[in-house]
Amino acid sequence: MELEKDQYKSATSIQVPHMKGGEGDNSYAKNSSWQRNGILKTMPLIQESIDGLFCNKSIPECLKFADMGCSSGPTGYLPTWQVIEALESMCHRLNNCKPPMLQVFLNDLPGNDFNTLFKSLPSFYERLKKEKGDEFEQCTFIAAVPGSFYGRLFPNNSLHLIFSSYSLNWLSQAPKGLISDTGFSLNKENIFMTETSHPSVREAYLDQFESDFTTFLISRWSELEAGGRMVLTFAVSDTKFHPCFFAPLGIAINDMVSEGLIEESKLESFNMPIYMPRDEEIRLVIEREGSFDIHQLQITFKENWVLSSENEDKGLDSDKYGRGKQVALRVRSAIEPVLVTHFGYAVMDDMFQRYSVKVIEYMETNAGFLETLVICLIKK
Amino acid sequence: MELEKDQYKSATSIQVPHMKGGEGDNSYAKNSSWQRNGILKTMPLIQESIDGLFCNKSIPECLKFADMGCSSGPTGYLPTWQVIEALESMCHRLNNCKPPMLQVFLNDLPGNDFNTLFKSLPSFYERLKKEKGDEFEQCTFIAAVPGSFYGRLFPNNSLHLIFSSYSLNWLSQAPKGLISDTGFSLNKENIFMTETSHPSVREAYLDQFESDFTTFLISRWSELEAGGRMVLTFAVSDTKFHPCFFAPLGIAINDMVSEGLIEESKLESFNMPIYMPRDEEIRLVIEREGSFDIHQLQITFKENWVLSSENEDKGLDSDKYGRGKQVALRVRSAIEPVLVTHFGYAVMDDMFQRYSVKVIEYMETNAGFLETLVICLIKK
Repeated sequence: MELEKDQYKSATSIQVPHMKGGEGDNSYAKNSSWQRNGILKTMPLIQESIDGLFCNKSIPECLKFADMGCSSGPTGYLPTWQVIEALESMCHRLNNCKPPMLQVFLNDLPGNDFNTLFKSLPSFYERLKKEKGDEFEQCTFIAAVPGSFYGRLFPNNSLHLIFSSYSLNWLSQAPKGLISDTGFSLNKENIFMTETSHPSVREAYLDQFESDFTTFLISRWSELEAGGRMVLTFAVSDTKFHPCFFAPLGIAINDMVSEGLIEESKLESFNMPIYMPRDEEIRLVIEREGSFDIHQLQITFKENWVLSSENEDKGLDSDKYGRGKQVALRVRSAIEPVLVTHFGYAVMDDMFQRYSVKVIEYMETNAGFLETLVICLIKK
Repeated sequence: MELEKDQYKSATSIQVPHMKGGEGDNSYAKNSSWQRNGILKTMPLIQESIDGLFCNKSIPECLKFADMGCSSGPTGYLPTWQVIEALESMCHRLNNCKPPMLQVFLNDLPGNDFNTLFKSLPSFYERLKKEKGDEFEQCTFIAAVPGSFYGRLFPNNSLHLIFSSYSLNWLSQAPKGLISDTGFSLNKENIFMTETSHPSVREAYLDQFESDFTTFLISRWSELEAGGRMVLTFAVSDTKFHPCFFAPLGIAINDMVSEGLIEESKLESFNMPIYMPRDEEIRLVIEREGSFDIHQLQITFKENWVLSSENEDKGLDSDKYGRGKQVALRVRSAIEPVLVTHFGYAVMDDMFQRYSVKVIEYMETNAGFLETLVICLIKK
């Protein structure tokens, strides 16, 4: 536990949001099955993108691929693995031609736990050699790029394929418009948009999303070669105020404020820098920005908050409290660093213990699904 | 101190050698003045390389630069800074032309503390913006490449300039030939080559150096574009068994063996994976390998083991014991991870306390200098 806390000693505001580092029980490395499933579902679009990139051209000597928001842990190399499988499949179909070299850029914020990610690089290469042979192992070059994808990260025209899984749900910052001109907090009892939020709260979140996603598109357009592609996934909402696993977290924090464990002003001034857009909001930003063709924007899938097969692996009970703990572990691994920066580390265990109970109560009256949209864009 | 120890919890053999991570008193980040001075002295060759790369050609859209063995801490971005200064100077001389984009690849082993390195990336960009302006800040893209430079790290023809400062003194492993066919340790009372080492010890070290450096040259040749350049520095020896700061460390460890604090077999089986070649040994490897022209191989400089101005900054006494502590801090920051892997963390404080005394005794009868050779190679 001491070690888990220690990772925050060097944290500064420039480094969040990022997934929870290390390999402890609460780490992202141990609690990323939702994200894993989301990445696996993108395989058809990655295959199609690789095929599309090469369909009318000779295969370039080196394919340059970037994963934006790779985080740390076991999902870190998964998109890269999928690209390799797609290249293997394409080469097989093209009379077993030699695969191109592959240069991979794993991107996340400077505060991401890159050390943990790099620690597993040798075993990634071992697996690559074993399963795909020397040809792929010797031609795959991995680099990391620390920095915000809401800005430039690469030279002009230096990438062929960009991937991002759920990372664009993270805003560059909590929306600015949540404090009124008179200094009044518009969302003071909530930490996110809920049914009880002021109407301008959703507007402020949407403004921030539109601004951030537009910046992302402009930056990536410059970095992609002509005809370059992007495969992006988002956690999406199909209603105005969708059921979300942050609602019960807000309830837990409100309880802690009532009990004097957290200052009221801390709650009032906090808003999660996360937004789950609707399909049409994503489409509108892309069309307005105008530099990408939408190749696909329809593959969606739903994932239950609880993966029933998993509790056994973790030694958690399969009853509702066990399910609550599972959801709490996952949500904690993804958002704890942001919460620690604002509320401090000392209240985290209590907060997520309460959350694991509240989330079950919440799921009894709300659908517990994470809905995902996968899109593919082509640089005009 | 607990934190300093914790960094080894995740260490495995694939991750050493690397500099001591973190920002503690014993960290490389706090004790890298030798390395800093060594890098600063390469500026004329970096300038000449940049000028040479562009002298007869139009300036490429993006200059690709790699620093091999960047380590963590304040020297991590120093070679990059020098490249930027060289670009600025070149552009100034060419009628203030627009600088090319610069893509930087910071390389070290996967066990290097990249997290600490990335933590200072935002302040690097702030300084860049402040001192060199938007033009440079917006055109400089930093990536990291974890992996051994004794092997391929980049796609073919993907770099223009490669830099490495003292990293090639680290061998890929301790020489294999130090255990005889009958299982007898040829260097059992030493941890490095000394006057008392068996003649075949130096031979084994030289063999390992020649093999490793040849692999380095072959790998880099593939990765450099035609005419690409390398600026490399080595700590060198001008005698057969030169005075070296590892000799007193060997004495300290022998004392600890005598006192039963370290097992004798641990000492017998340990050899530092470091070699300080002679000038002609370096030249011979390059000429035999044959794919680089030696543009320069003569700039050498000597650095005293003790930098007198520094002890005051660190609150160390300026007497000989203070000087001993300074040398001990520096040597520890560079080699502790290798020693911990073999001897365990528990004996480190004692070992370097003894070393700080032994090194002063040693310096009273030996010259306490670090001699550096800087070379510039051009891809044939």
